[in-house]
Formats: sequence, structure tokens, C-alpha cells
Amino acid sequence: MKTGVWLVGARGSVATTSMVGALALRAGLAEPTGCVTEHPDLRGSALPPIADLVFGGHDVVTTCLAKKAETLGEAGVVPPRLVAAVADDLAAVEENLRTVPVGGTQAETAAALAADITGFRDRLGLDRVVVVNVSTTESLPEPLPAHGDLDLLRAELAGGGSPLPGSSLAAYAAFTAGASYVDFTPSTGARLPALDALARETGLPYAGHDGKTGETLVKSVLAPMFAQRNLNVRSWSGLNLLGGGDGANLAAPGPNAAKSASKQRVLAETLGYEPEGNTRIEYVDDLGDFKTAWDLVSFAGFLGVRMRMEFSWHGCDSALAAPLILDLARLTSAAHRAGRQGPLTELAFFFKDPIGDVPHGLSEQWSLLRTFVAGLK
Amino acid sequence: MKTGVWLVGARGSVATTSMVGALALRAGLAEPTGCVTEHPDLRGSALPPIADLVFGGHDVVTTCLAKKAETLGEAGVVPPRLVAAVADDLAAVEENLRTVPVGGTQAETAAALAADITGFRDRLGLDRVVVVNVSTTESLPEPLPAHGDLDLLRAELAGGGSPLPGSSLAAYAAFTAGASYVDFTPSTGARLPALDALARETGLPYAGHDGKTGETLVKSVLAPMFAQRNLNVRSWSGLNLLGGGDGANLAAPGPNAAKSASKQRVLAETLGYEPEGNTRIEYVDDLGDFKTAWDLVSFAGFLGVRMRMEFSWHGCDSALAAPLILDLARLTSAAHRAGRQGPLTELAFFFKDPIGDVPHGLSEQWSLLRTFVAGLK
Amino acid sequence: MKTGVWLVGARGSVATTSMVGALALRAGLAEPTGCVTEHPDLRGSALPPIADLVFGGHDVVTTCLAKKAETLGEAGVVPPRLVAAVADDLAAVEENLRTVPVGGTQAETAAALAADITGFRDRLGLDRVVVVNVSTTESLPEPLPAHGDLDLLRAELAGGGSPLPGSSLAAYAAFTAGASYVDFTPSTGARLPALDALARETGLPYAGHDGKTGETLVKSVLAPMFAQRNLNVRSWSGLNLLGGGDGANLAAPGPNAAKSASKQRVLAETLGYEPEGNTRIEYVDDLGDFKTAWDLVSFAGFLGVRMRMEFSWHGCDSALAAPLILDLARLTSAAHRAGRQGPLTELAFFFKDPIGDVPHGLSEQWSLLRTFVAGLK
Amino acid sequence: MKTGVWLVGARGSVATTSMVGALALRAGLAEPTGCVTEHPDLRGSALPPIADLVFGGHDVVTTCLAKKAETLGEAGVVPPRLVAAVADDLAAVEENLRTVPVGGTQAETAAALAADITGFRDRLGLDRVVVVNVSTTESLPEPLPAHGDLDLLRAELAGGGSPLPGSSLAAYAAFTAGASYVDFTPSTGARLPALDALARETGLPYAGHDGKTGETLVKSVLAPMFAQRNLNVRSWSGLNLLGGGDGANLAAPGPNAAKSASKQRVLAETLGYEPEGNTRIEYVDDLGDFKTAWDLVSFAGFLGVRMRMEFSWHGCDSALAAPLILDLARLTSAAHRAGRQGPLTELAFFFKDPIGDVPHGLSEQWSLLRTFVAGLK
Repeated sequence: MKTGVWLVGARGSVATTSMVGALALRAGLAEPTGCVTEHPDLRGSALPPIADLVFGGHDVVTTCLAKKAETLGEAGVVPPRLVAAVADDLAAVEENLRTVPVGGTQAETAAALAADITGFRDRLGLDRVVVVNVSTTESLPEPLPAHGDLDLLRAELAGGGSPLPGSSLAAYAAFTAGASYVDFTPSTGARLPALDALARETGLPYAGHDGKTGETLVKSVLAPMFAQRNLNVRSWSGLNLLGGGDGANLAAPGPNAAKSASKQRVLAETLGYEPEGNTRIEYVDDLGDFKTAWDLVSFAGFLGVRMRMEFSWHGCDSALAAPLILDLARLTSAAHRAGRQGPLTELAFFFKDPIGDVPHGLSEQWSLLRTFVAGLK
Repeated sequence: MKTGVWLVGARGSVATTSMVGALALRAGLAEPTGCVTEHPDLRGSALPPIADLVFGGHDVVTTCLAKKAETLGEAGVVPPRLVAAVADDLAAVEENLRTVPVGGTQAETAAALAADITGFRDRLGLDRVVVVNVSTTESLPEPLPAHGDLDLLRAELAGGGSPLPGSSLAAYAAFTAGASYVDFTPSTGARLPALDALARETGLPYAGHDGKTGETLVKSVLAPMFAQRNLNVRSWSGLNLLGGGDGANLAAPGPNAAKSASKQRVLAETLGYEPEGNTRIEYVDDLGDFKTAWDLVSFAGFLGVRMRMEFSWHGCDSALAAPLILDLARLTSAAHRAGRQGPLTELAFFFKDPIGDVPHGLSEQWSLLRTFVAGLK
Repeated sequence: MKTGVWLVGARGSVATTSMVGALALRAGLAEPTGCVTEHPDLRGSALPPIADLVFGGHDVVTTCLAKKAETLGEAGVVPPRLVAAVADDLAAVEENLRTVPVGGTQAETAAALAADITGFRDRLGLDRVVVVNVSTTESLPEPLPAHGDLDLLRAELAGGGSPLPGSSLAAYAAFTAGASYVDFTPSTGARLPALDALARETGLPYAGHDGKTGETLVKSVLAPMFAQRNLNVRSWSGLNLLGGGDGANLAAPGPNAAKSASKQRVLAETLGYEPEGNTRIEYVDDLGDFKTAWDLVSFAGFLGVRMRMEFSWHGCDSALAAPLILDLARLTSAAHRAGRQGPLTELAFFFKDPIGDVPHGLSEQWSLLRTFVAGLK
Repeated sequence: MKTGVWLVGARGSVATTSMVGALALRAGLAEPTGCVTEHPDLRGSALPPIADLVFGGHDVVTTCLAKKAETLGEAGVVPPRLVAAVADDLAAVEENLRTVPVGGTQAETAAALAADITGFRDRLGLDRVVVVNVSTTESLPEPLPAHGDLDLLRAELAGGGSPLPGSSLAAYAAFTAGASYVDFTPSTGARLPALDALARETGLPYAGHDGKTGETLVKSVLAPMFAQRNLNVRSWSGLNLLGGGDGANLAAPGPNAAKSASKQRVLAETLGYEPEGNTRIEYVDDLGDFKTAWDLVSFAGFLGVRMRMEFSWHGCDSALAAPLILDLARLTSAAHRAGRQGPLTELAFFFKDPIGDVPHGLSEQWSLLRTFVAGLK
């Protein structure tokens, strides 16, 4: 059962780390640390093995994959010895990468993207393909009527219009190519009624949004703790310092706003009220992939006595995200095979801004996930 | 339905804070922040209202309760205005406090303690009494055959022997007085087979050990997070800086060892392996009740990349413990009323070192607690 | 030798804390902790004793001083027992406070302000008066030709113009009233060539800018440490979380920019290069006067190995600033008496953004200060 | 002017990092980041250039230097590309390493050690040699009469006695071989009156003790800051988590006590009083050379208001120590050449526990050092 993983942003840090890791795991050179689907409670025959994942994808840049992997090796994101060991396999993946077409109408672009995906599936004899968006975060688009109605959307596209942001166009292409879709970024992706309708029409599942890799992950266990202890969180403020391409983009006002809102949402949802405070994202080129997030939580306890907690998270963003890409590909593919269509709300565990009316506390998300995986068998 | 709360260590910081708080709540002067049993998911008619709790207790010291409350007010542990407002009610509680008898055999002491408890119940017309140990942490006692056999224990006591540490003698007295027993300290308490047998013989429930108020609370949500994300925790080291009577005692080698072991246990239980590292307790008189705990977690992620997390917890120990005393009194009394006997393992949520084969992750403990409370109705 | 301290922003937190403290010190109820001029190396007969300081001032608000002091007592900024003890003295100070006149031309306002200051001096028989600006931080004003030329400035004022920001108008009024001037805020104050000329013409000294109370203080010792060890600071990023009136104002874009620039300047000056990174100021009402600043320093050591340092500063802003107000009043008054005029660059120790071409490392500033005080004798 | 650097503990992490670095600097492959003597204020012709340093040394182990360097490369302490680039030079150094002789009397051992040092000097035509102790920290030795009297010491050695700890025997050998001596560890070294007499008799300088590389460095700037601001430090507590051979040794009670005392001394010396609190050292193998130190400073400000500061230092111990070894060798050699004998108290800048009645604040130590270097010209 060979499963294709089609990465949008295939030459970026997260995608490259995922691929190097999967190839190293297949070669028996590394442990699946950080892969949630290798947790004893989730392991099972319903999921395609990591060794059976086949990679391809789109990117707007043309950096050589081997070169990118080497850079990640020098930066300490992946062990250089593994980069060397999987060099041949990585060169083979290079054959499956395509440039995002430019210059045509959105309809033409979508058709070209979809053709790349179906070509990948047919050429390599894959059972099914999951498209995973790991490209740069977009600003929030202006709402349009075509976002809410599939017929209207088709009409606008047919008329040469450009109603969709890039991530949604990728989802549109995925669905028309018969592939499921996962959005690991806070971009719009499949999160439009028109695209939900398309997914249901084509019988495909999708998942998102915004992979939960560090600070928000910690928030999603600390906030329920404060809630269950009936402590009154008065303010929760945070600063994220990060470099890399992601950092540069997220420091721009548009994407920054999208991301910060996504980061505070967990508090309102798990506490039942919104404490004061913001989450700031600041680009510090020098830090590269090794992000530091610091949070200060100020809370009132018995009889109003004031207390504080602070934490620093020193994480390697790509190394935290990469195994989750493999997890999401395995889970979404298995859901596709099992006939699921529409949003996979049970994958909330992986996301900062999960789709649907789902719990935001990590432990309830974990229960949802376990039940979901058990049901796939 | 008046419920007696008999505090062992009734003139200490935790006990005094509990009493000031309960009296202030009864007078409508404060919110029940920090009281778990006031969480919307747990609130219900099965539990005795906080306003119906009646306080008494033992202590080895004779500090005036009003004086102790004032000192706590000056130290910022309770608001001075509340201390002033409940002064009369506190003076009334003073009538219910007794000195721990000294000089007799353990059998005589136990009889005197039990007489104090039954006197409290009868004089005030209480429906039932919960004995809660909040006295100073003991060193681990030498194991003795009498600990494992109720008949042997009775024989030794009858023969003038002293087989029991103080906390266990208090539990013995509680059970013989028909009162349930909660150990909020890491001391031995009811945790001996002979005392478990006595609890069952007298049809009484008990709970413990070692209230989970700060650093271990945080560990009990962070460790499951690392486990569920399949991250490999390599070391987890901590330092607790605290003053107050508790700090001075815990810095002594015996109690320190008991406490530290209790603090690391959550890691082995939730991670499934024991990472390197220790939890140190250090007495810093100057910090008083406002403890600071700092933890460093070093972990490996995907392909072995090393990352770190650290947190600082600046909590007021007595203010964190006090509402839990009220919670445990309400829950244990309701369990007693419902006919429960033996260990209340469902109260694991409250303890660093819970009795029984129970989960150590906070969210699973929360589920246990919710089910328990629902079943009491 | 009675010295008047005329506070601009006299009803604010910093001013009120200064006055409560000075009165408590005079009454022998408190130690001069935090007063730099009470350091053994600086103590001497040249400085007016704290007990001889007499307070007055302007404010735009009319909050009662006693009420403000009580609020500070409740917030833990000053001990409530001291507020009670100095109540009568504080009521006497209330007699010396004046409202900032509104509605007239700047020339009329300046004349009224100056009249208030001379009235204060004459009525109370003061030897001299120091005006200290502790009012709200202004945005950077637009540069105007009148700022650079005293004659032009006088002409514009005489013509009914409004060329000066508030803090500079206060300095103008001070100088015309024969009083020295200290700016404890980042506002413009006396820092205009026209006002420097006026100070020299009237033979008066002045000092500023922006009291160094927390994060920048720490920076001013850590940055020289990195420099002397020849370590390469790659990035230095910080977040200041603070409430209170100051916080609300500083979070506004204009004042925030003024303040943040002032906070990073110490790095370029002491390191000899400007590392990456910013200092953010974020208003969190809930934190009140108890600010938390967090900084991350990322640096390269031998052979380029990367290391990090982070610190959290949990300070009470008004309590850190207040004793420095007393110090600056004593030092500036003594300089005035000694015949100094123009900028007191030797007071750089107290400021984030000191006037003149002075060292920014704290220890060199300390040497300057010691020499200055020794020279006053 | 070729200068020999004879390292005691030559195959350890610090020594190897020093040598790899010096060789890389000589080859123009690295910048002298972290080398204090390359600071613009200190650079000058009086010091032997790093490129002219020639390495040799003793060790009790026989690990191959190249292998050790590789291990350091894998651990991220030195860049692997530099290890590769200096492989040949490192092999040449290997020729200059000797095993510490075992089995003889102390007199015989000292003679053999001295012969190794003179052999090194003569064989390679060196102008002078500095012996630098970077071996494992010893426990404090029992005081003996021979430590206080050179004649007595010589008599005991001649009689076959073993009056000296290892580090002092190394100093004895150095002095008899005409070499100066630096102790970078907290061990006894030359710090005995008998050895001081020997240094003076032989006209040799010496320096020590205990290189100041991280937490104590930070303390030596923060403590003066608190003092100069007249803030009252109430407690200062710290935890050092470190792995590596140094960590394992320092966690043993004897060396730990020696080191911890050395670490708190800076506080008493710079504050003028000793605040509460300890510095704990804890071995965490997993952390390797990348130590984390955390400190909590609790202090009182104006009117007794309580505040806190905490910092975390994430440093690579060997990378912090190695450039200081080069500095100390250059400075001590230049002092030897300039005719200095006895303790070089002006090198206090480098040490946690400097010899002599010297300032402990970093900035005063920096002034001393600058004057010292200027005087060498």
C-alpha cells in the first residue's frame, strides 16, 4: 500500500527535514522519536508504514534538495551523517518535484497542479496521495461570495477570475486530483465552504490548521491545568523569537496577526474566558530554526493571592514539525482509505487552530485521536 | 449536614489559611478561587457546602490562631482585611483546638486523640468528621511487622509499644473515632496494611499522599505532553527554593528524601521510563511561603535533535494548599456518607504520591475525579 | 539648608512613592534602601539630607495624594503602615501642589508655572528648588528652528506660538524661575539647544534622561561583561510587560518608539556594534506596577560555538524609581549650590539615555559619579 | 619568542579545545572570539602571539588527542571542520605529551615531571614555559606543617613523604623546572606558603584560582550592580547542571564543597554582606559540556518592597574556558619575561577565587588587568 505525500513547499526546511527523516527511518538509521503515530497507544496496521511513504511536491523556488539538506545539517537541524546516508534517495525524490506554474489564470494553474499530482500517483503506482501544505503563511484573504458557494467558485474560475488565495488553490487542485489535503500552516487552505463542498463531492478528507509544535503545545496542557485547579488566569503574555524563512514571514504584519490570533485561541477555549495579554512573534535571523518562546502567566489563587509562572521553550521548529507531517500523512491517508470525507476534526491534537467544534486541551485531543485510530482498524 | 474538619497541625500556615478562607467564603467576602470542587464540572449537591464545614484540630504548638492569621496577612498569604473580618469566627474555632497529649504510651495518646475527635463531633452535633493531616513531614519510618497486621499492631499498642509514626497514630485515632482520614503530607499516615484493615473494619475511607500544589502539578501535565508527542525526555532536574516551617523541615535529609522521591515519581509513571535528574529542595528562610521552583527539561526530538524547556513557578504554597484541604474534606466526607471505605484512589488528582495503581497524568486523574463526583450524587 | 523638590506629575505613582518614602525616612520609620546617595562611597556633607527635602509640584490630575498613597499601599508598592504613619505630613504636602494651567498661550502657561515654583520657594523659605519631571512620556516632537535658538524661541513664545512639548515648557519655566531641572522620563525636557542656552544664561544645571530602573540597568552591566570577555553578542531581544499608567502610555506607538530606542542604545554604546533584536514594551494592566522584563542574549564564543543567556527581572517600577528621584534632587541641588551650570553628564549612572558623550557601562558611570560627589565637598 | 604551554590534564576537554583553537587561529581559520587578550584595550606587542604558543603536557589518561578532538566535534564543542583542518598539527602536539609517572615517591615524581618540562623547553627551543593546571578538581587537602615552610617541605619530600596534593606537586615541579604556573581549577596548586617561597626563590610568577567562565562571571557584574544601587540582596541561590568529566567530579562532596564556596565568595566580597542561599552543583551526564546554571536573586528595594531577578546561563564550559587558557598563558609568560615573581594578583579578572586582597567586581578587575597589560609594554 504505497502512499504518496505531495508537499506544497517541498524545498523548505520542514519538508526537507520530513523527507530526510523518513528516508533515514526506512534505512533503519534513526528512531521515530517525535512521531506520534509510533506511540504504543496508536501503533497499528491501519496506518501506512513510514517506509511506504513516497515523496513529491511543488515549490516556487528551485533550491536543490540535497543542498537544502546539507544546510540543515550544518545548522544542526538534522545530523549531517544522515544527510550523507540518504543522498541517493533524496536525489530520487528530486525527480518528483515540480515548479508551481506561473502566468496563467487560476483555473489553468489549478489544472496544472492537479496534473502534477495525478502524474505523480500514476507514474509511481501509488494507492493514494495526501497533499500537505508546508509553504509560507499567507495573510488572511478578503472574504468573497465565491468562497461560500462551489458553483459560484467554479463560475469565477471558469471566467478567468482569481478568487482563491494560494493555499486554497492548492486544496482545490488536490481535491480535483482525488487527493486528500492537510494544511500545516495558518493559511486558509480548505477552510472555505466552497472547498468543503468540493471535498464532500469528491469524497475526500482534509485536515488543519497550523501545526502545534511548541509554545501553543505547552499552552494546551497548562491552560487546562489552571482551569481544573480553578485558578484564575489574569494575564498570559508571550514572545516568540525565531529566525529562518518562517520567522521573516511571520514578522510581517499580515501573517503575524493570523498566527498570533491562532496562538491565543487555545486560552479562551480551555479557560472559558480570555485573559489579558498577547503573543508576539519577532524575527531574529540569528536564531535560525532554533526558536525560543517565553511566556509569563499571572494568576490569582485562593483569596486572590497573586502568583506567576513563566516558561522558556528552546525548540528546533523544523525538527518538531517534520515528524508531525509524517503522522498527518499516514492518518489522513488511512482516513481516505476508510472512506472518511470532509474535515478530520479528530486530528485536533496536531493543530493550533483545529477545524470544528473540538476541545483545545491536549489530553482531550489525545483521547479523540486514540479513538479515531482505533476506529480505523 | 454539618461536617467537621479536624486538622492535625491546626495552627500551621496551611490550616490557618484554609480556615480563614472558609470563614471568608461563608461570609460572602471572597470567591472560591482555587477550590477544585467549585469547578462547574464538579459542583453538585452531593458535597457538603463550604459554609457548612466546622473546624477543629490538634497541634503540638500553642500559637494563637488570630496571631498566626495576622502573620499570614503581613506576609501576603491572605488579605489582611479578611483576617480582620473573620476574627470573631476564628476565635470561635480556637475553642475547638486541642494540644497533642505527650508523655503517655502510644495507646494512651491514641485514645486521647480519638476522644478529642469524638468530643468535637458530639459537642457540635456534626454528622461526620474528616481528619486531615497538614502537620510537618516525617522521615520514613523503619518497617515493622506490626505495620502489616492489625492484630499485631493492637497487641503491641496494648503492650505499651510505640510502633507507629505520628501521622499513622493520627490515622489510627481517626479510625477508632469513626472519622475518615486524609494525608496531605508525604508522611506514612494510613498507608500501612494494618491501618487499611482498620479502615475497612470501621467502614471508613481515607486518602493521600502529599498535596500536589506546584512543581509536581506542572510536571503532571508536561510529562504526558512529552510522552504523547513521543519526544524523548533525557533529563529533568529541578530546584525548589522555599522558606517557612515547611521549608526548614524539608531541607533536613530525611524528609527531603521522602519528598524528592515523591516529586520524581510522576515522571517514571507518565513517561514510562525514568529520565536522569533530581529534584532538590533548598530552604531559603527569606522566601517565606512564596516558593520558587525551577525545572530544566532536556529532550531529544526527531532524528535526535536536542532541545530544552525550562519553567519557573512562583507560588504561594499555603494559598495553593488551603483550598485543596477544603476540597478533600468535602469529597472524603461525601464518600464516607456514600458508604465508601478504604483508599479513595479516585482522589489522585490532588496528590503527588497517590494511593493505588492510578494514573499520574493530571488529565486522566481529572477524568477519574469527575466520574467519582458524578457517582456520589 | 532646605531644598525644594518640585515634581511635575506630582500625583503619579513615582512621585507619591518618593514623597511617602522621604517622609517615612525623616520620621525614622524606614531605611534608605535603594537610595544611591546613601551608599558608603557617596555619603557626605555636600548633599542636602533627605530629611531637609520639601515637596511640591504640578499635575494635570487632581487625585488626592492621600488616596493615591493608599492605592499604592493596597498594591504592595509601599507598606500600608507607612502610608498611615505619614498621613499628616502628606496632607501638608498637598498644600504645595498646583494644577497645570490650561487654556492660555505657552508663554502664559510658562509664566504661571514659574510663578508656582517661585511661590513655593519664597513661601517656604527654600534655599533652592529642583524641578523633576516624572510625568507621562511624550512622543518625540517635530523638530523646529525655535528649538535651536533661544532668541527665536523667545520670539515665538512672545508671538503666541506653541513651539515646545510639555516637558520642555516645564524646563523653560524651571529655568526662568531659577530652578534646576531633571528629566526622569524619555521626553525632550531640557534637551534642546535653546534650553541649554537658557540654562547657561541663568546659571542652572540640568540632568536626564529616562531613569534606569530595571532591564536597562541589567543590560548596562551585562553588555560590558560580554565585551570585556570578547564574546560576540549576536542578538539581544527583550519584552517588557507592565501595567499602570506608565504601561498604558508606553504601549502607544509614539512613546513606545522613544522608549525602545533608549533601551537598545546601551548595547551599541558598550559593545561597539549593534546586535540584532528589539526591546518590546507591552501593556498588561493586570501586572500593575510589578513589571516583568525578559531578555534573551544569544552569543558566539570560542571558535563560533553558540550559547545563550536569559534573564527575568520582576521589579516594582515605582519602588525602583522613587529613591532615585531623591538622589537626583540631592545631587542636582548640590551641583546648583556648587555653581555648576548646563548638563550634569556625571549623573549618567541614573539614566537610560544620558546626556553627553559619556560611558554607558554602569561601572564607568559609577566612577564618574563618585568623582563628581567627591568634587562637591 | 616561542612560548611553551604545558597543560596538566592535556588530554581533557578544556586543554584539547584550547589547542584545536590555537592551531586553527594560527592557520587563519578562526577568529579569536572569547580571547580577552585580543580585546582592543589589551592588544599589544608585550604578549606572545597566539601563533607562537607551543603545546605540551601531562595527563594520567592516554586517550588519543585526535580522538578526543573528534568527540568534541561531535558534541558541538568545536566545529568538526576545524578538527579536520588541524589534524596534522594536533598529531605533532601528541609528540609533546607525557604520562604522569606513578609508583615513585613524591620527590621522584616531581623530578620526573620537571624533567619532562625542561625537556619540552630544550627540545623545542622555547624561551619560557607556563604550566597550566586544567586537570580534575581535587578535594581540599588536610593542612600540614610542611605546607607552610619550604625547608620543611623539602625535608619531607627528601624523606620519602607525600605532603602535597597533586596540583601542588605540579606547581612544585614547574617552579623547579623554571616554569611559571597557573591554576585554572579550585585545587590547591601554588597556594601554599612553602610554594610561594619557592616561586620567589626561583623568580617565577604564578596565578589562580578557578577559571571564571559562567555563573560566577555573571555574579561578578550583577552583585556590584545591586550594591551600587544600594539594593538589599536577601538571598541568592543557584543550581548548576552539568555533565562531562568535570560535572561528575564536581558532584562528589569534596570537590563540590570546594567549588561552591568559591562560587559564593564573590557575593560577600562585592556586597559587603553574605546573603542567604547556596550554589548547588548537580551532575547530569546527558547535558555534557553544555551547562545550564540558574540563579534566583531575591532583594528588597525602597521601603522594603520585595523584588526578584532570575537568570539562566546556557554555556559550553570548555568553549568558555579554552580561550582563557590562551590568555593566561600569554599574560603569565609576559609577566615572567618582565621579571614578575610571586602571585599575579592583577589577573583576578579570570578567576572565581583570585589570589590576594583584590576586588571581586568584574569592572574593577578589568581596570586592574588593563593597567597590568599596559605596564608590561
